Amino acid sequence: MDYQQVINNIYHEVKSLPVVGEVADYIPALANVDPDQFGIAIATIDGQTFGIGDYQCKFSIQSISKAFTLSMVIRHIGSQLWEYVGKEPSGTPFNSLVQLERENGIPRNPFINAGALVVTDKLMNLYTHPKEAILEFVREMAGTDDIYYDKTVAQSELKCANRNQALGYFMKSFNNIDNDVDALLDVYCHQCSISMTCEELAKSFLFLANHGINPHSQKEILSVSRSKRLNALMLTCGFYDESGEFAFRVGMPGKSGVGGGIIALIPGQLAIAVWSPRLNKYGNSYLGIETLERFTTDIGISIF
Amino acid sequence: MDYQQVINNIYHEVKSLPVVGEVADYIPALANVDPDQFGIAIATIDGQTFGIGDYQCKFSIQSISKAFTLSMVIRHIGSQLWEYVGKEPSGTPFNSLVQLERENGIPRNPFINAGALVVTDKLMNLYTHPKEAILEFVREMAGTDDIYYDKTVAQSELKCANRNQALGYFMKSFNNIDNDVDALLDVYCHQCSISMTCEELAKSFLFLANHGINPHSQKEILSVSRSKRLNALMLTCGFYDESGEFAFRVGMPGKSGVGGGIIALIPGQLAIAVWSPRLNKYGNSYLGIETLERFTTDIGISIF
Amino acid sequence: MDYQQVINNIYHEVKSLPVVGEVADYIPALANVDPDQFGIAIATIDGQTFGIGDYQCKFSIQSISKAFTLSMVIRHIGSQLWEYVGKEPSGTPFNSLVQLERENGIPRNPFINAGALVVTDKLMNLYTHPKEAILEFVREMAGTDDIYYDKTVAQSELKCANRNQALGYFMKSFNNIDNDVDALLDVYCHQCSISMTCEELAKSFLFLANHGINPHSQKEILSVSRSKRLNALMLTCGFYDESGEFAFRVGMPGKSGVGGGIIALIPGQLAIAVWSPRLNKYGNSYLGIETLERFTTDIGISIF
Amino acid sequence: MDYQQVINNIYHEVKSLPVVGEVADYIPALANVDPDQFGIAIATIDGQTFGIGDYQCKFSIQSISKAFTLSMVIRHIGSQLWEYVGKEPSGTPFNSLVQLERENGIPRNPFINAGALVVTDKLMNLYTHPKEAILEFVREMAGTDDIYYDKTVAQSELKCANRNQALGYFMKSFNNIDNDVDALLDVYCHQCSISMTCEELAKSFLFLANHGINPHSQKEILSVSRSKRLNALMLTCGFYDESGEFAFRVGMPGKSGVGGGIIALIPGQLAIAVWSPRLNKYGNSYLGIETLERFTTDIGISIF
Repeated sequence: MDYQQVINNIYHEVKSLPVVGEVADYIPALANVDPDQFGIAIATIDGQTFGIGDYQCKFSIQSISKAFTLSMVIRHIGSQLWEYVGKEPSGTPFNSLVQLERENGIPRNPFINAGALVVTDKLMNLYTHPKEAILEFVREMAGTDDIYYDKTVAQSELKCANRNQALGYFMKSFNNIDNDVDALLDVYCHQCSISMTCEELAKSFLFLANHGINPHSQKEILSVSRSKRLNALMLTCGFYDESGEFAFRVGMPGKSGVGGGIIALIPGQLAIAVWSPRLNKYGNSYLGIETLERFTTDIGISIF
Repeated sequence: MDYQQVINNIYHEVKSLPVVGEVADYIPALANVDPDQFGIAIATIDGQTFGIGDYQCKFSIQSISKAFTLSMVIRHIGSQLWEYVGKEPSGTPFNSLVQLERENGIPRNPFINAGALVVTDKLMNLYTHPKEAILEFVREMAGTDDIYYDKTVAQSELKCANRNQALGYFMKSFNNIDNDVDALLDVYCHQCSISMTCEELAKSFLFLANHGINPHSQKEILSVSRSKRLNALMLTCGFYDESGEFAFRVGMPGKSGVGGGIIALIPGQLAIAVWSPRLNKYGNSYLGIETLERFTTDIGISIF
Repeated sequence: MDYQQVINNIYHEVKSLPVVGEVADYIPALANVDPDQFGIAIATIDGQTFGIGDYQCKFSIQSISKAFTLSMVIRHIGSQLWEYVGKEPSGTPFNSLVQLERENGIPRNPFINAGALVVTDKLMNLYTHPKEAILEFVREMAGTDDIYYDKTVAQSELKCANRNQALGYFMKSFNNIDNDVDALLDVYCHQCSISMTCEELAKSFLFLANHGINPHSQKEILSVSRSKRLNALMLTCGFYDESGEFAFRVGMPGKSGVGGGIIALIPGQLAIAVWSPRLNKYGNSYLGIETLERFTTDIGISIF
Repeated sequence: MDYQQVINNIYHEVKSLPVVGEVADYIPALANVDPDQFGIAIATIDGQTFGIGDYQCKFSIQSISKAFTLSMVIRHIGSQLWEYVGKEPSGTPFNSLVQLERENGIPRNPFINAGALVVTDKLMNLYTHPKEAILEFVREMAGTDDIYYDKTVAQSELKCANRNQALGYFMKSFNNIDNDVDALLDVYCHQCSISMTCEELAKSFLFLANHGINPHSQKEILSVSRSKRLNALMLTCGFYDESGEFAFRVGMPGKSGVGGGIIALIPGQLAIAVWSPRLNKYGNSYLGIETLERFTTDIGISIF
C-alpha cells in the first residue's frame, strides 16, 4: 500500500476542515504553541517511514509518555504491577477520585493520572536515576539520541501540579505510593515534558506493533503476551473518557497527550503518529482523531 | 490450523482445573441447570464448524442477546441510536444508576442493562411484533429455525425483574424510554431467554467476524464500518466490569451472558462460543474465559 | 407576645419583596395554582390561633404529609423502623439513588422520597385501609373533619410518578419494600394530595410542639422521647438539600412541600405554617423561608 | 436543678457499662492514652461549675478546635466565609472527596476536614501569627492561660497528614486555598493538638450557650444571630456521619473530637463536656454520647 499517498490525501482533506478546539492552556509553556501545526508520520515494522506536514517538529508528548514508563515497569516486574493499579476503563473523569476513594487508593488503570503516578513510583524503585533511565529507553526505542526533556515545560508543570500532588498524597495515605510525593512529581513532570517529533514517536512505538520486538535491533523489549496486553490496555483506556469512542471510530490501540499528539498502531504492520495541538473537550487532538478515523477507513484496516 | 485439535486440547486441560464458581441463582430457571456442563464450538467464515463437549446442548444465552438486538437496531437507525445511549465503558457496576442520574438517563453503553433496555425500546419502535422479529433475526444469522424462547426462563425473569423495572421507570422519567415499561420488560426478558447451542451461537456471530456479511447467504447485515464499530463496542464493553481484563487476557471482541455462555470472534477468521455455567464474581463464565485465554495463546492470534 | 402583630408586620414586608421563583410544574394540577397567594398562621399550645393573608385557603401539602405518616408509623413500631430507613441527612439530591445503591436499598432518612416510600410501605402493613387511616389521623391532629384528598392532584401525580416508581422497584429489588409498588404509589400519591389550610396545618403539628401530646385532646400521640426525635429529624432532614441552610437561617424543626407550604415549630410554644407557591431551586417556598427567618429574628426565639 | 447529682448518677451508670470501642490509633501520640479515663464537666452561664471523674485531666481536643477557629473567622468576615465553604451536612465520609470534586473544591461544611482546612486558611489571612491567635482566643474563652499546644501530638499528626495534604492540594487546584499547603497543615495540626480539661472546655463554650456573649467578661464574641447559626451548624454537622443520629438521640448542638472529647450545649443554660477515649465506628466517644443521651433524658431538656 502507498502509505505516503494515503497520508497526503488525508492531510489535505483534514487540513481544510473548519478550525475547532483549543490548545491546552493549563500550563503557560503549552499554551504558547502555534495551534495550527499539523503533522503525520508512519513507521512500518519492515523499516519504512512516511511523513507529511510538521512531522519533524518537536512537540511535548505529555501523557503518551505513560506508555513508555508502563512498558519499562511491566518489563521488570510484570504482573506484580497489577496489585497496585487496575486494568479497567475508568468511566468518567469525575470518577478518578471517587474510585480511588472507593477502591482504597488503587487507580483503575495505568493511563489515568493516578495510575501513571503509581507506575512512575514503581519505576523509581527500579532505577537509581529514573529520569536518565526513561530518556535512555525512549531514545533506544526511537533509534535516536536526539530526544530531551523540555525543562521549561517540566518546571511549568511542576508549578501547576496541585491536582497531581493531591492524587499523590491521597494514594500515599493508602500506602500505594512508596516514594516521596515531591520526588515523584519531579520525575512525572519530566516524563511528560519529553519533546519528540511525529517521526520519532512512530518509530518508538514499533516494538508494540511488532509483538514486543524492537524491529531496529531485533531485541525483545516485551514478551508477545505482554505486548498484546499493553496494546489491549491502550485500546480500552488510552483516550481517557473517549476511549470507547476512539475504539468505535478508529479501532486501533493508541495513546494521546494534551500536547496534541496521538500515537496508534496496527499490530503486525505499523505505528502512526499525528500531531495537532487543538484539543476536543476530552483533551484529545481534534485533527488527530479525525486523521486516524480516515486512515483506518481509507486503508480498510482496523483491528476489528 | 487444526482447530479441532486445538479445542480438544484446551477442553481437556480446562476440564481438569479445580471446580470453582457458582451458577447464576437470581432466577430459579437458571439455578437448576447442571453446573458441570461444558462445550466449545468454532465456526469459520469459510464454512467449517468444530466442536467438543456439550457444544450441541441448548442453554440460555441471556445477555449475549444484547449483541443481536443492537445489530438489528443499528442496521435500521444507525448513528441515531447514540443520542439515547453512549459508547463508553461504564466503570463499575455501582456506577450504573449513579451515571444514569448524572447523565440524565442516558446509559453509558448498550451492553449494560440500562443500555440494552434502550436498544430494545428502539427495536419496539421499529417492529410491530418485536419478539417475532428478534427470533427471526437470530434464526437467520444462525442458519437454522430450531431456535426458541424458553418460556419458563422468560416468566421466571419477569417475576424477578424489580431492578430492571427500576431502570426502565428511571429512564422513562428522563424521557429516554418510549414504550410502556411492562411491555418493554416482556420483550427484554424474552430476548434473554433464547436457548441456543454453542454451535448455533458461533455460526450466528459470523457476520460480525466477516465485516458485516452473513457468510451463509452473502447478505450484508451491517456495513463494514458498522460491523467494525459493533466489534469495538464488544471489546470495550462486552464483559461488564471485566471488559478491560478480558481484552487484556484474551484480546478478542465478545459478549458474555449469565447463563454461562461467551461468544468471541477474530475478525476475518472465526467465531468461537464457549459454555460453562459456573460464573466468576463479575458474572462471566470461569471456564469460558479460561478457554478463550488459552485459545488465543495457543494459536498465537489475538487482535493485538 | 403579640403574635398577630408580628405576623402582620412580616406579611407586609415579605409581600413587598421582588417576585422570584416558580410554581412546581411537574404535575399540571400543581402548575395551575395562583402563584401569588400567601398566608401565615400560628397555633400555640395554649390554644390560640393567629393568621393573615390566604391562611384559610386550602393547598396541597405534598411532602409535609411525610411528617404525618412518619408519626403514625413511629407511634406503632417505634425504633423497628430504623432497620429500613436511616436518620442521617442525605447530602445532595444526586445522592439519593447513589446512596440507595451503596447502602443496599436503605434510604438515608424518612423525608427524602425513597425514605417516605418505605414509611408508607410500613404504614400499609399496619392498616387495612391506609388511605382512610391517614386522613383520620390528620383530621384528629387538626381538630377538624374538613380535610380531604384532592383526587385530581392524586391522579395527576400517579401519571407522573416514573421516578418514584423507579425508587419503589429499586428498593423492592433489595427487599426493602413489602407491598406491591403500584399499590404503594397509590397511597403515597394520595397522602401528598391532601389539601389543608395554613391554619389547619399549624394546629395539626401542635402535638410535636407539645412533647407528643395533642393539646386539644390531651391525648399522647408520641412519647416525649419520640416527639423530640421526630423534631430532630425535621431539623436535620426536613428541607431536602437546604436542611442545613434552614437550620442555619431559621433554626426551627420543620417540613416543606412543593405545594409551597412550610410547617415549623418551637417546642414548648407554637407551630407556624406559611404558604406561598413560588419555590426556590431546592423546591422550598421562597416567601415561606423568608417569613420564617424574619419570624425567629423578630421574636428573638429559635431553638439555638 | 442539682447538676452535680445528675452527673454523679450518670457517671456511675455509664462507667459500669460493658467496655466497647477503641482509642484512635492513627497517630502514636493518641494511641498511647489510657483508654479508661472518663470525665464530665458542666459550666452554666450563671457561673457555676460541676464535674466528676477525670474532668480535670488534659486531653487532646482535636476536631473540637474546629468550632473555635470557625468562631474566630465568622467573627471577622461573617457571611463572606460561605463563598468558600458550605453549610450542609456532608452525607457520608465517602462523599468528602466526591463532593469536593463535584462541587469545585467547595467543602460541604466547616466541620468536615476539608471545610476546617478552608476555615484555618482564612484565619491565616486574618492573623500574622495564627497559632498564637488561636491559643489566645481559646484561653480567653476558657478564662485561663493554662492551655497549650501538645507539640508531640502536633508533630505526630504532621507526620501522618497525607490525607489532609491531599485535601489541601486538591482544594488549592480549585483556588479554594490561599496559603501554602505545608504552612496550612502546620497551623491545622497545631489547633488539633490543643490540650484541655473537660472543665476548661465546658467554660470555653459558654459564649455559644449565651447568645454570643462571653459570660465571664460580658464581651460579645459573636452577635446573637451568628451564635445561633454556629449552634445550628454544630447540630447539623458536628458529629460527622453521626450528626443526624446525635441530634436524634441527644438533641443538643455539639462537637466531637477523635481524642474522645465531646462538647455540647443547651442555649440559654449551660455547656457540658465529656471525655472518654474509646470511640465508636464514626469516630465519636462511646461513653460521651451515652452520657449526653442520659443527660438530656434525665433532666428532660433538649432543644426539641
